Amino acid sequence: MRGVMMHAPGDIRVEQRADPEIVAPTDAVIRLSATCVCGSDLWPYRGIEPVEGPSPMGHEYVGVVEETGSEVTSVRPGQFVIGSFFASDNTCEICRSGYQSSCVRRELMGLYGAQAERLRVPLADGTLVATPEVPPDDLVPAYLAASDVLGTGWFGALAAQAGPGKTVAVVGDGAVGLLAVLAARQLGAERVVAMSRHEPRQKLALEFGATDIVTERGDEGVERIKELTGGLGAHSVVEAVGTQESMLQAIRSTRPGGHVGYVGVAHGVALDGQELFFSHVHLHGGPAPVRAYLPELIGLIRNRTIDPGKVFDLTLPLDEAAEAYRAMDERRAIKALLRV
Amino acid sequence: MRGVMMHAPGDIRVEQRADPEIVAPTDAVIRLSATCVCGSDLWPYRGIEPVEGPSPMGHEYVGVVEETGSEVTSVRPGQFVIGSFFASDNTCEICRSGYQSSCVRRELMGLYGAQAERLRVPLADGTLVATPEVPPDDLVPAYLAASDVLGTGWFGALAAQAGPGKTVAVVGDGAVGLLAVLAARQLGAERVVAMSRHEPRQKLALEFGATDIVTERGDEGVERIKELTGGLGAHSVVEAVGTQESMLQAIRSTRPGGHVGYVGVAHGVALDGQELFFSHVHLHGGPAPVRAYLPELIGLIRNRTIDPGKVFDLTLPLDEAAEAYRAMDERRAIKALLRV
Repeated sequence: MRGVMMHAPGDIRVEQRADPEIVAPTDAVIRLSATCVCGSDLWPYRGIEPVEGPSPMGHEYVGVVEETGSEVTSVRPGQFVIGSFFASDNTCEICRSGYQSSCVRRELMGLYGAQAERLRVPLADGTLVATPEVPPDDLVPAYLAASDVLGTGWFGALAAQAGPGKTVAVVGDGAVGLLAVLAARQLGAERVVAMSRHEPRQKLALEFGATDIVTERGDEGVERIKELTGGLGAHSVVEAVGTQESMLQAIRSTRPGGHVGYVGVAHGVALDGQELFFSHVHLHGGPAPVRAYLPELIGLIRNRTIDPGKVFDLTLPLDEAAEAYRAMDERRAIKALLRV
Repeated sequence: MRGVMMHAPGDIRVEQRADPEIVAPTDAVIRLSATCVCGSDLWPYRGIEPVEGPSPMGHEYVGVVEETGSEVTSVRPGQFVIGSFFASDNTCEICRSGYQSSCVRRELMGLYGAQAERLRVPLADGTLVATPEVPPDDLVPAYLAASDVLGTGWFGALAAQAGPGKTVAVVGDGAVGLLAVLAARQLGAERVVAMSRHEPRQKLALEFGATDIVTERGDEGVERIKELTGGLGAHSVVEAVGTQESMLQAIRSTRPGGHVGYVGVAHGVALDGQELFFSHVHLHGGPAPVRAYLPELIGLIRNRTIDPGKVFDLTLPLDEAAEAYRAMDERRAIKALLRV
């Protein structure tokens, strides 16, 4: 089969790779309907994370089950399924507490390489969720978004305790930040402030339910949020970038007793204990337990309450993956979908 | 009146100071019944925080109201009152959300110097809580503990979400840590692990309701907590020290999705964003909103459900404050009460 490999920073190739097979009786093999490039794929692409030899890429996937191991009972061949970037058993104590992305048996799907024609999914019963029917083509991008960016934005909004009566600010206007806007709104937030200086992203934030746009960043952005909130700061702030600047912007935009939900994978972030202590904020985040939210998100997508698929503003065939990476790296695209 | 002054690290003197007076119509002046030395007073005493000229000391206080400003309505002369280390109006939006120690009008009581015969308390209506009657002498230490260390341990346990079914670990065996053990138990925690290697403190932890004692520290302490919790880590961990080692010990002892409540004033703490991200813990803490808990804590003390006064294992007259500081610095005393 064909699959995407990263050979070095900036060097993306679509190559012939071995077809995946059932290895463990809890595995499934799926034929991908669509996959995509993640903001986190850009860290190694840009050389900020090391690339150790040619590596299969991709951890966002929707597709049709082709084959299942002998112990798999919850999905069967022919079903359309969505999974998350961590495989999880969904039965351990950590999973049952709602943290499937820290499952004691978790496996990082990125190692399997979802930017490909087929994918082996371990722990299929705990990882995959089937839709009630094979969806129409126009819903595929939305379901694909649920695999990571929607679920991650959702977790960010939940971790920030977005809800009725709350003012929620979102730091970061990538796909995750934009979908955190959508999530905050779905969760009932009264006011949702998108922090963005890019006109097309502002537009999408407004479509997703943002009530205010703040274009300032850093300390100026913090000041603007305070101005909008009677000098106190937002109740809830979602951090969806992962840099030192964005984390400080998030913490400082939050009122005492408020909540920061951080979902940008931290790179070079060091938090000063004393500042954090006196900020009085709640801090929670990490890799989103997307699996926990899939049943609810599938319902919202299926009845067309939400359309997170709008974050895909570039669609290319799998063979043009290199251009998909380039477009996202150069911020010509918010998020690139790869047709398989 | 007499009051304690710190002239330089290690240099504590009891001196004649001006009698406090009503300055604002919202002030009260109280005659202290007892005051005490705080673990946080040891930071400047040890030269870890700067001492900028002779400074009045002390921020923990109980006493009898002598005089009130013209706008004070909730307390009156003759009443026995307890306040916290932050004065607060208890009416602003931050106070109403339960964060009186970040009140928009807050004032640090340490600047007024509670280790003295008398004390001016600003924002008296929002800061002081009167007991139903002037208490018997044997309850005074318990009420004094409520002014800071009990309220701080309580906040730590609440921030760590201690409660029924939970295993709670407490890092730090000072007065705050020991009272976090008491708080966790009062809040219904199933198992409370005190981390201490000092026999008299272990004994007090057990009296306060600890179910387990762990003597190991750092990574070995983390391993012991994991052994006690099926490899997962504690649901809730209270950090009551404020050093880099203790913060990491707390975070690493907590299971994914668990809660760290940190109340040790951070000194030299820098948290790595990536470790925090993948730890999946909730982090909350800061200066405890003691005011929020005083009514409940007064009730528990008054009906003798709890005796937090046991943390005072040294009682000296105010004039011997220098010895009180020395005894705590040398860990000969857990906490020293000063009779006024």
